[in-house]
Amino acid sequence: MKLANEDGRFQMMAIDQRGSLIGMLAKVLGISEKEVTYEDVATVKQEITRILAPYATAVLTDPVYGYPYSIEFIPRDVGLLLAYEETGADKVGPFEDRVSKPIEGWSIEKALAAGADAIKLLVYYHPDAVPEAAQRQQAFVRQVGELCARSDRPFLLELVSYSRDEVPEPRRSELKAAKKKLEDTPEFARAKPNLVIRSAAEFSKPEYQVDILKLEFPADLKYTEEYCHRVFDEKEREPVYSLKEVREFCRQLNEAAQLPWVILSAGVDIEEFLVQTQLACEAGASGFLCGRAIWKDAVTHYRRDDKEALAKMEEWLLEEGVYNFVRANAFAEKALPWFEHRSFGGAEEVRLAGQGPAWYREYLSK
Amino acid sequence: MKLANEDGRFQMMAIDQRGSLIGMLAKVLGISEKEVTYEDVATVKQEITRILAPYATAVLTDPVYGYPYSIEFIPRDVGLLLAYEETGADKVGPFEDRVSKPIEGWSIEKALAAGADAIKLLVYYHPDAVPEAAQRQQAFVRQVGELCARSDRPFLLELVSYSRDEVPEPRRSELKAAKKKLEDTPEFARAKPNLVIRSAAEFSKPEYQVDILKLEFPADLKYTEEYCHRVFDEKEREPVYSLKEVREFCRQLNEAAQLPWVILSAGVDIEEFLVQTQLACEAGASGFLCGRAIWKDAVTHYRRDDKEALAKMEEWLLEEGVYNFVRANAFAEKALPWFEHRSFGGAEEVRLAGQGPAWYREYLSK
Repeated sequence: MKLANEDGRFQMMAIDQRGSLIGMLAKVLGISEKEVTYEDVATVKQEITRILAPYATAVLTDPVYGYPYSIEFIPRDVGLLLAYEETGADKVGPFEDRVSKPIEGWSIEKALAAGADAIKLLVYYHPDAVPEAAQRQQAFVRQVGELCARSDRPFLLELVSYSRDEVPEPRRSELKAAKKKLEDTPEFARAKPNLVIRSAAEFSKPEYQVDILKLEFPADLKYTEEYCHRVFDEKEREPVYSLKEVREFCRQLNEAAQLPWVILSAGVDIEEFLVQTQLACEAGASGFLCGRAIWKDAVTHYRRDDKEALAKMEEWLLEEGVYNFVRANAFAEKALPWFEHRSFGGAEEVRLAGQGPAWYREYLSK
Repeated sequence: MKLANEDGRFQMMAIDQRGSLIGMLAKVLGISEKEVTYEDVATVKQEITRILAPYATAVLTDPVYGYPYSIEFIPRDVGLLLAYEETGADKVGPFEDRVSKPIEGWSIEKALAAGADAIKLLVYYHPDAVPEAAQRQQAFVRQVGELCARSDRPFLLELVSYSRDEVPEPRRSELKAAKKKLEDTPEFARAKPNLVIRSAAEFSKPEYQVDILKLEFPADLKYTEEYCHRVFDEKEREPVYSLKEVREFCRQLNEAAQLPWVILSAGVDIEEFLVQTQLACEAGASGFLCGRAIWKDAVTHYRRDDKEALAKMEEWLLEEGVYNFVRANAFAEKALPWFEHRSFGGAEEVRLAGQGPAWYREYLSK
């Protein structure tokens, strides 16, 4: 498995952000999202990749802004994951259930030819979504699973939940009017463990042919008794559970996920991500695939055509970015090697399928 | 380029031998070639790969005996080349001109899915072959070139010459009756520079879409004034040229080859190969892709199901095999970095084609 280190642990970096990175850049440059250029995005991705890729066991990037200018900076012993989904999602039904689609003009064949060691697909998913949305998301995953199997490429599926009817009206409309996140609420914090666990169970079914799950932390640490008092940010929150209960959610998630899984960072700060990584790995995660938690502050230094600003960004990456990455790697030191996952049963059991004289004939020929 | 080291030099190992390795094993085991088993071949390849692959910038193996049992022993920063041609060749016409064919049941798609960083094709070629043979070989190369281009995989073409009418009758029939090689004759030694140079010129044409040429040394050092007196083996030979002339053949070959090229070992002993490598690299070769010269004596230790013999083979590989490889690497230290070849013009000029916002759409879509 080219994505993990020799011990079977995943210490992967995500730099495939598009919508969220454009949003960050708009804010930093004081312009609208539409005014952010291709070069802005490609430059930031290139710099982050150039400096941090050597610390990763694999790098996840996107074929639009990431690959063309960053591929030359991914060392050859670092795996390459390419994103398959278009950024964002369509919204359907009264609770804005999400429906994803592929990047138009891109394909698994292109990803393979471009050297991808694995394919990553992100779907937003809510187990109680309207059937139209849930079924389309499931069909999309099934389709990509089939394409990956045919190309003998590991399929990494990322699941991201969202608030649906967890926050009832009229609070829901009030929050949206104030442009506040429905996901930063006690209601959603309470619902989240169940959403993450049920989603992981669904996509562990063999019909989806997923190899690795990239999962959210199954709780919001900012709503725990221990961390609710401005440990990770400046906002005071009401606790909805304890760290002990969160450990139990992690245990349940590990039970529901019938496949090796890694934790994602979803833009939380590094301190919170380190705690998440530790708890997830204690429960049985095989490492992380982390983006913004490691590098997001680098983006604040970016200015267009400004060498001094770019030098500052580079300095931040070399100092703080590397520090973040090294700490994340350390926190994944006790992750479960993927080949030790109960779905494999040890390195000795992991062998090339059909090893033998007929392998070359039968390979990929069902 | 995943096949070269960071400086752009190729120090590659070939372990894709099939026919010749089966011949060696039959001799070693004192049995007929038909009695050599799949396991014999796969085991020897696995051991050689396991111990020597870490010294290579890339490993060339075959999908039949090599890949299934060896792939797990190729380190992730070492490139993977897979052979596309069936071992041996059909013979047509009065002078037994060679016609190659692909491995039945294998394909470029499978090679790609199996993780090949590049495709290698060997064709036996004689520029004066009967049209049927020459045209079929050319068409085969053209076809594989097209398939590689479509998959965005480097295409490495190996050219091997053979004696046709260089040795005239009745000596030709006499030599064949005595099972002596037509290629170990003063006539063929004299003809060889011209054959190698003309073949390299032919397949440098853009229509074949070759990326790297794997070429024979353009002379037989055993027939030089300097080395003809039992320097490399026990046989005394009549010289047909001097080392100075051989240097000139190398210069001409480098001029004829319009692409980066590497030298092959064709089963000569390591001492001869080191001299060949030095002379080729002085003339402009970008390194080597070497098989038997590095590892062939390991095979003599092989005995079926004999742990002691396998331990001796391992010991030979660790001692002598590694020593051979390290010396070969050292002799390629002054090879021309591939990106410095006149067909590229420096590392700065080598960029992803079509880098920019439309890359992902246009990639592989002609």
